[in-house]
Formats: sequence, C-alpha cells, structure tokens
Amino acid sequence: MSDLASIYLDNAATTPMDEKVLEVMLPYYKNNYGNPSSVHSHGRNAREALEKARKKIASLLNASPGEIVFTSGGTEADNMAICGAISTFGIEHIITSPLEHHAVLHVAEQVAKEKNIRLSLLECDAEGNLNLDQLALLLEKEPNSLVSLMHGNNEIGNLNDIERIAALCNKHGSYFHSDTVQTMGHYPIDLKSLPIHALSGSAHKFHGPKGVGFIYINKNKKINPLILGGGQERNNRGGTENIAGIIAMAKALELAYNNQASHAQEILQLKVYFKEKIEKAIPGVTFNGLSGNLDKSLYTVLNVSFPPSENNQGMLLFHLDLEGISVSGGSACSSGARLGSHVLNALQTDPSRENVRFSFSRFNNKAEIDHVVKTLAGLYQA
Amino acid sequence: MSDLASIYLDNAATTPMDEKVLEVMLPYYKNNYGNPSSVHSHGRNAREALEKARKKIASLLNASPGEIVFTSGGTEADNMAICGAISTFGIEHIITSPLEHHAVLHVAEQVAKEKNIRLSLLECDAEGNLNLDQLALLLEKEPNSLVSLMHGNNEIGNLNDIERIAALCNKHGSYFHSDTVQTMGHYPIDLKSLPIHALSGSAHKFHGPKGVGFIYINKNKKINPLILGGGQERNNRGGTENIAGIIAMAKALELAYNNQASHAQEILQLKVYFKEKIEKAIPGVTFNGLSGNLDKSLYTVLNVSFPPSENNQGMLLFHLDLEGISVSGGSACSSGARLGSHVLNALQTDPSRENVRFSFSRFNNKAEIDHVVKTLAGLYQA
Repeated sequence: MSDLASIYLDNAATTPMDEKVLEVMLPYYKNNYGNPSSVHSHGRNAREALEKARKKIASLLNASPGEIVFTSGGTEADNMAICGAISTFGIEHIITSPLEHHAVLHVAEQVAKEKNIRLSLLECDAEGNLNLDQLALLLEKEPNSLVSLMHGNNEIGNLNDIERIAALCNKHGSYFHSDTVQTMGHYPIDLKSLPIHALSGSAHKFHGPKGVGFIYINKNKKINPLILGGGQERNNRGGTENIAGIIAMAKALELAYNNQASHAQEILQLKVYFKEKIEKAIPGVTFNGLSGNLDKSLYTVLNVSFPPSENNQGMLLFHLDLEGISVSGGSACSSGARLGSHVLNALQTDPSRENVRFSFSRFNNKAEIDHVVKTLAGLYQA
Repeated sequence: MSDLASIYLDNAATTPMDEKVLEVMLPYYKNNYGNPSSVHSHGRNAREALEKARKKIASLLNASPGEIVFTSGGTEADNMAICGAISTFGIEHIITSPLEHHAVLHVAEQVAKEKNIRLSLLECDAEGNLNLDQLALLLEKEPNSLVSLMHGNNEIGNLNDIERIAALCNKHGSYFHSDTVQTMGHYPIDLKSLPIHALSGSAHKFHGPKGVGFIYINKNKKINPLILGGGQERNNRGGTENIAGIIAMAKALELAYNNQASHAQEILQLKVYFKEKIEKAIPGVTFNGLSGNLDKSLYTVLNVSFPPSENNQGMLLFHLDLEGISVSGGSACSSGARLGSHVLNALQTDPSRENVRFSFSRFNNKAEIDHVVKTLAGLYQA
C-alpha cells in the first residue's frame, strides 16, 4: 500500500476506503438499484439490504435497529441531534465546549441566537481538559439542558470522559449528545451500558465512503427530524436512502469492529514510534492538548508543536506537501479558511510555534513514519 | 439491457445508474480519497474535481458555479430552499399546492406551524391544473411570499407553467423555488432566461447515484444554510462533500443534457406506444392528471386509471409484481405508508378504479411495453 512519494497522515480528515468496502458497494450501483420505499421486487431488494445494514450497525454498537437513522454524514447527524433535541424537549440551555467541531459549535451558536436560548461553553485548561465540575453545577442549576460534548477531539485527540458526562446528564435528566465521529469504529461503543441519548457517526472516518453517516437516537428520547420528506427512516429523515453508501458504511464498521483491538494496537504502535522518533529528531517539540498522553488521547492523532525555526517560518505544511506528505494544521474543515484552529486558539498555544496534526490509520506503516521524521529533521537542520 | 422476466417501469421513483457514470466515480473511491477541504495534494486533487463538477453542472444549466450547492439529494435541497428563504427574507406567507412532493409540502406545513406563518395551497382542478390566477391575486396582496411549485409532478406528470409562475413572482418581488427533481436532466433548463431563485435536483432521477443532489441558489437571492459545520460549499452547506457522488452526478447530468433531445424523443415514443396499446387492450382505461396529454405532461410518466375489475380488486400492483413488473401506485416515498396518494386524493379520483404509475427511461424498450400490456390484458380478461 505504501509509496514514500505520497504519504497520507491526515486520517482524522478522511480515510482511504477499504477495498472490501467497495466490493460490497458495487452491486448497489450496478444491479440492485431499486428505491427502498417502492413495494415491488426492485424496491424490496433495496429495502432488505438497507434493513440488514441497519441491523448490523445496531448490533456492533449494542443498540436496537430502530435507534439507527441514516444521514448524509456526521455533520448532518450533529445538526439533527442539536436542533432535534431542542425542539422536541423545549430545551432552553445548551452546554458544549470551545473544543467541539464546528458541526456542533456553529449549530449551537446559531440555534441559541435564533431561539434566544442560553449557551454555556465549559471551561478548559491549557491541555484541553474540560471542567466537568462546572458541568455538574450547570446541570444542577438547570437540568433541562442539552449537553453536546464530543468523545475524541479531531484536532488534539483528547478523549473526554463520556461515561462521567453521561452519568451526570442522566442524574439530572438532561439530554446528552456526543459527536463520536473520531471514535466510531476505533473505540468500542456499547450503548446498552453507556446511557447516552444521541451520537453521530461518519463512514469516511473509518474507511467507508464520504457522504454517508448515521445518528443513534435512544428510543426513549426520540427527537424531531431535521429533514422532512417522504417518510423514510421511519419518519426520522426524509430523502431516498443512499443505499450503496449505507451498505458500504455497515461493511466498513463491521471490518473496523471485528478487528478493533488489533487495529488499535497497530496504530498505537505507529503513534508511539512517531512520537519517540520526532522527540529525538527535533529537540523542543511538544504535543498539543493531551495528544502526547497515550492513555488520554486518540491513538490515531498526534498534534505536534514545533519550536520556532527560521527555515520554515509558518511554512512547515507547505514544505511537507512539496515532499508529498499530507498532514494538517487544524481540522480539514477549517483549513480553507486559514483563520487558524479554533481548538488551538482555545488552548492559547504559543503563536511562535507551528502546529501540525499527524493522524494515522491501519494503512500506514513504519517506513512512512521514518520518511516523515527524516523529512522533518531535514527541514529543521540549520 | 432488457429481460422480460424483470421489467422496471418505475423510473420516477429511481433510475438505474448509467455504467459510464460508475466509471468516472470509481477513481474517487479507489485513489483520490482526499478531503477537498484539506490544503495538501490529496485534498487539492479532490477540490479540483469538486469544482470541475460544479462548473460542469452550472454550465449545463447556464448558471454560475457559485450558484450550485451540493446536497445529499432533492429532499435536502427542498428543505433548504424553504427553510432558508423564510429565515433569510423574513417571509411570513408560503404559497404551494396540494400536489407537491412531501419534501416540499411537509416542510411548508411544519415551518408554517413552527414560525406561525400563513400557508396557502393553490386550488387545482380534477386534472391537476393549478389556479395561477389565484396565485397572482395572492402575490398582489402579499408580495413578500415564498412560492414553491414543482416543475413536473412525480405522480401524474403534470408540467406546471414555471415561466409564468416565475414571471409573476418576479413582478411582485416574491421568492420562487421550484422542485425540479423530475425534470432535471430531462428538460432543458436555462437559468439565464428563467428568472427563478432556487431549484432542486437529485442525481438518482437521471441515472446517477442515490444520496447526492444539489440546489441552485440565484446569486442575487442567497439564502441561509440548513446544515451548518465546517464552512464547506462556501459556507452554504456543512459536511465533507460526497466527492464520488458529486463527480457521478455531474457526469450523469452531462450525459442527460448532451443527448437530451434524442432521449426525450425515444422515451416519448415509448409513452405514446404504451398509451395507444393499453387503450386498445383494456377498454375504459383513462389517464390521471394531465399524463395522457403529451404536451402538458412529463414524457417519462403515464398514470393510468384502470376500470374496476373483479379479478384484481385492488391487487393490480401485486399481480404485476408477481409477474416481475415493477411499477408504482403513488410515489415511491409514500408507498410504505399505504395511505393512498395525496396527489390522487387531491384530484378526487374515483375510488373504485385502480391507479398505476408507469414511468419510463431510456433503458426501457418496446418489447417490455408489449409484455407489460399483454400481462395487463391477461389480468383483465374475465
């Protein structure tokens, strides 16, 4: 798979699709083209595949099939969770954090403004640890709140303690949504033991296709739909289903969870290897957020803070790109904007240092890491 | 392509994908997997393809690339048009018709209720002709209205006079959205000469994949997004773009428009052939809406009203399905519900007669029509 002329270490932005995923997808482009809402045989074939995919995803997460609603991706799922919870339960207070993805943060800000409801952003320290005592106080004061806090941060890799957050929300009867886009398929999620109300998944973050995702909605806390139409998804989401994408997503999640422990081990080893090599190669590197802490961060993400260098003043990403190495500054979604990362800004990182997110997948290997570290060391030599 | 054991005449529900479309799609699953928001080479390759697809679609419709926003399908586009226009322009009156797709009708009803704004449904006669004089009066009385009226009806094939509707809306400065899901790729649309503000397209209605569509938004009447997130689509629609789907949709639309006149001619001939044969084979058949009127209906749709028959009492679709013939009662989207078609209900069709929508594509042929008519005649013999 590897070719040192082109190295992809931006797997938190998107991942290459697994060939096995493409294989199961193709028949739904070639022959089984029915609309699952049609009652005839073409439609029933599509419907059967659709419900099988739903059942598979539900079973991998220990949820019920009726709790899985297919969407166009993680962003739609996040939008639906926030807008839906607020309109369904008459919630007048949103609690989230400055470290959330814009698919949560911008929606929360927008809805708060539109509906004139309060928005609280939890405090965090310089490592991105959220103040969960503050959360407890806020919930005590105002139990009818929506809490939206991610599982794993896409930029700095911080893993939030969603068990504790879920317990707090349940204690107060508050609604808890978690953006699990970075952990879905990478960390086991058992929805029978984790009392969460909604979570978001995106296929292309676990080697499935772009343009498809899902939202888990706890059956005891159903929410209003975001997109209305022809009654698809048991009236939870209008629009003809992206059958091929959904089949592909179910396969990708199955591949991910059937081999989760070994993938996790492999990728963690790459991260550790990279971390140790880069620390030796470039004195003064540090790691943003908790990404250097192996127990408290995604094994897929290492966000490196490079010491100032006259050679690369703000040009590290550019130089790496010239060498065929694809990595990221902030998240992919905000790269176009070049306003800098809102996550790193929230941590008040030193502006004289340059930050690069390296994110790994099971399609990377040590030879690539060696090459990247060598390239970086070269860029740092006076 | 044809196999008489399995005949698909439900192309208004969804169409088989063109093989040429799949061909251009595959590289974006196999190698070009970058996230178009990433600034590195993987991302730039995806971005370039994305913008090329946007340019192609814009050019086929004589629009500007910046006026095309990619969505997960026609339903999302309809939702976005209605919610966006209302929130952007502070509109307090929606005008639509009882014959619209639920992706328009249900959204209009929901928004009207939520925001406490007025909803007017245009009158229609037994053939589904809309009362456009009523529209003129309503707009005169209340110019700051949103008008959402479809181009071609998905069930009865009626073509609305969108030129006249557009002219009326422009005269009064009202916002005009048209659900063009059934006509996109099938009828020429020239957005430099048609003064429309928003329209919706869905790839799988013109031999592209499911799960991808677009909305055209006139650059002088920009509207708020429906889905917020990472600033994709020039801040018009959050979420990592479904690159493969978008590339495929652009190709499908190109194939459709590059051969539009000949496809239209071919398919119209099939419809005429079917109409003449079925009229001879089963005395007493009539056609719902304007679908029997070749000038005023989609060449892709014929909605047949069958005389009562003791043999098939309400079982025509079931018998046809047993014979491997896929056709539809109402729209696919509402088939699951079995509440009957809201469109046919609005026309107050005779409940003792059975209605079947036959919808054709360029992948159908006369042999299939012969077989279907023969099968129907058999079902009608005493």
